[in-house]
Amino acid sequence: MNEFDLIARIRTRVQHVAVKARDDVVLGIGDDAALLQVPAGMQLVVAMDTLNAGVHFPDGTAPADIGWKALAVNLSDLAAMGATPAWSTLSLSMPGADAAFVDGFLEGFLALATTQGIALVGGDTTRGPLSICVTAHGFVAADTALRRNGARVGDDIWVSGTLGEAAAALAQWKSGAPGDPALRERLDRPTPRSALGQSLRGVAHACIDVSDGLLADLGHVCAASGVGAQLDIDALPASQALRAAFDSGTRQRLQATGGDDYELCFTASPMAREAIETASRDTLTAVTRIGLIVATPGVTMRTAEGAWSAPATGWTHFL
Amino acid sequence: MNEFDLIARIRTRVQHVAVKARDDVVLGIGDDAALLQVPAGMQLVVAMDTLNAGVHFPDGTAPADIGWKALAVNLSDLAAMGATPAWSTLSLSMPGADAAFVDGFLEGFLALATTQGIALVGGDTTRGPLSICVTAHGFVAADTALRRNGARVGDDIWVSGTLGEAAAALAQWKSGAPGDPALRERLDRPTPRSALGQSLRGVAHACIDVSDGLLADLGHVCAASGVGAQLDIDALPASQALRAAFDSGTRQRLQATGGDDYELCFTASPMAREAIETASRDTLTAVTRIGLIVATPGVTMRTAEGAWSAPATGWTHFL
Repeated sequence: MNEFDLIARIRTRVQHVAVKARDDVVLGIGDDAALLQVPAGMQLVVAMDTLNAGVHFPDGTAPADIGWKALAVNLSDLAAMGATPAWSTLSLSMPGADAAFVDGFLEGFLALATTQGIALVGGDTTRGPLSICVTAHGFVAADTALRRNGARVGDDIWVSGTLGEAAAALAQWKSGAPGDPALRERLDRPTPRSALGQSLRGVAHACIDVSDGLLADLGHVCAASGVGAQLDIDALPASQALRAAFDSGTRQRLQATGGDDYELCFTASPMAREAIETASRDTLTAVTRIGLIVATPGVTMRTAEGAWSAPATGWTHFL
Repeated sequence: MNEFDLIARIRTRVQHVAVKARDDVVLGIGDDAALLQVPAGMQLVVAMDTLNAGVHFPDGTAPADIGWKALAVNLSDLAAMGATPAWSTLSLSMPGADAAFVDGFLEGFLALATTQGIALVGGDTTRGPLSICVTAHGFVAADTALRRNGARVGDDIWVSGTLGEAAAALAQWKSGAPGDPALRERLDRPTPRSALGQSLRGVAHACIDVSDGLLADLGHVCAASGVGAQLDIDALPASQALRAAFDSGTRQRLQATGGDDYELCFTASPMAREAIETASRDTLTAVTRIGLIVATPGVTMRTAEGAWSAPATGWTHFL
């Protein structure tokens, strides 16, 4: 099996799975490039993220989980812009032409793609260490994209879902102990918050996806917006599985600094609370208010004792 | 230097170099995704190609050459569609955050980007074995893209530039002998035939870029078009450097099957010869007529003796 065979195999799978073809794909897999039609009045949103073996997923991760995650992390970026997913391209580097790996990978990739209505329209396969690069394309109406730089003093800070489980699963895996499957599921199969992101257009002032840890990513929002943030660490949403597996200090560290959550962190006026609760119900996505945007730069956290303090410097991304 | 520092460094370099910003870039590097405006009436053309160290370029290749080539191979795909380049995204995987490598890489990447008017609008940097994935975006007016499937019986077959030098340089490098810099330049700094590709819209019936070797790529055109091809092997264009370095048998093998040429191979009606010569002069890109599209499937070659014969099966891509 050579590269051409692999591409043919991917093309066949894509055509088989993509029951409802998108009519904005003029030309998909099989030529030098894809031909696509952006709807009138829409802007194109483009995100690109790579997963490398042993860096972005543990060795031994199931091919289907790798496929799911490779698309999910890109869809999470589109969600953070409030974009509607449309098309993806995939570059797959593998040590050898491994048909079983490709089949498993596509099972996960296409399962998520089908759910999210995103077509796989091109890319390439190459020989090399296992690495997956995906580019995701979506649309937003002009001037409606969510950005990092719109946070305003007095905004509530919100986060979707729960935090820290992916980092917890990674910590369990690293320790060699048998991990909790509920936590591992969050590491392997993150849920991009596409519907919530789209419903926050015109509601949220700023948005980012939490991929490098809440403190780091909220820090990007603050820096881009020229503001600061005060977080209530006791308010950070935690799953039952996370509470069961760790003491509160470790748990809060995982929630505040663990990576790979792929939740949305966004800011909005307190006047928008009802609209946000409605968006949450409509999209079946939990949201939690976790803090306040302030004028003083930097991200600080309220501890259990009620004092505000800067995060310890040791709290960096430990992936 | 961490990932955020690297991205900031890339962003600064891009802003410094891109003297004339594109006004269709609504939002470039620095958010979760780029925001782009496709002009009304245009279709989007998307190509994605990865270069892996030791597979797509020899170990020890200069960072600036890697940067150039990573963009060039993608622009070559756009050229084969007849597209006008617009935007690129870059995913750079490196073993460590190596500022000198990034600076060199960007020097080559941005040198070509500036020449071709393509903006770098996003992407990511990750830890991993050296690997570069680029997605290139361009435009074509609706229904004008060049495709692989339009070749017709009786069409002339043309190729731009000269063939075989990149494969020759690779063969010299592998042999350990001192290589000819003129040949090596063609391996490290291929010239995407963007202007020629654009000028062939409405003129050529089918087009592909020669990246896997002329026989393989022309074979893709024939398969997609349901036709065959007869090549005149003595007509294949060769540079003086190639003629000087190899006997005619080796030279012709390199021209017919060597990869990494990044020339355009296209077919057109004999009625279009004058238009093609004009396009060649206007774009300062040599073109050569090398054969004929026929009804019988497969690619055959006329040898020096004048007989038509199928290529020996051993003539496969040897990169």
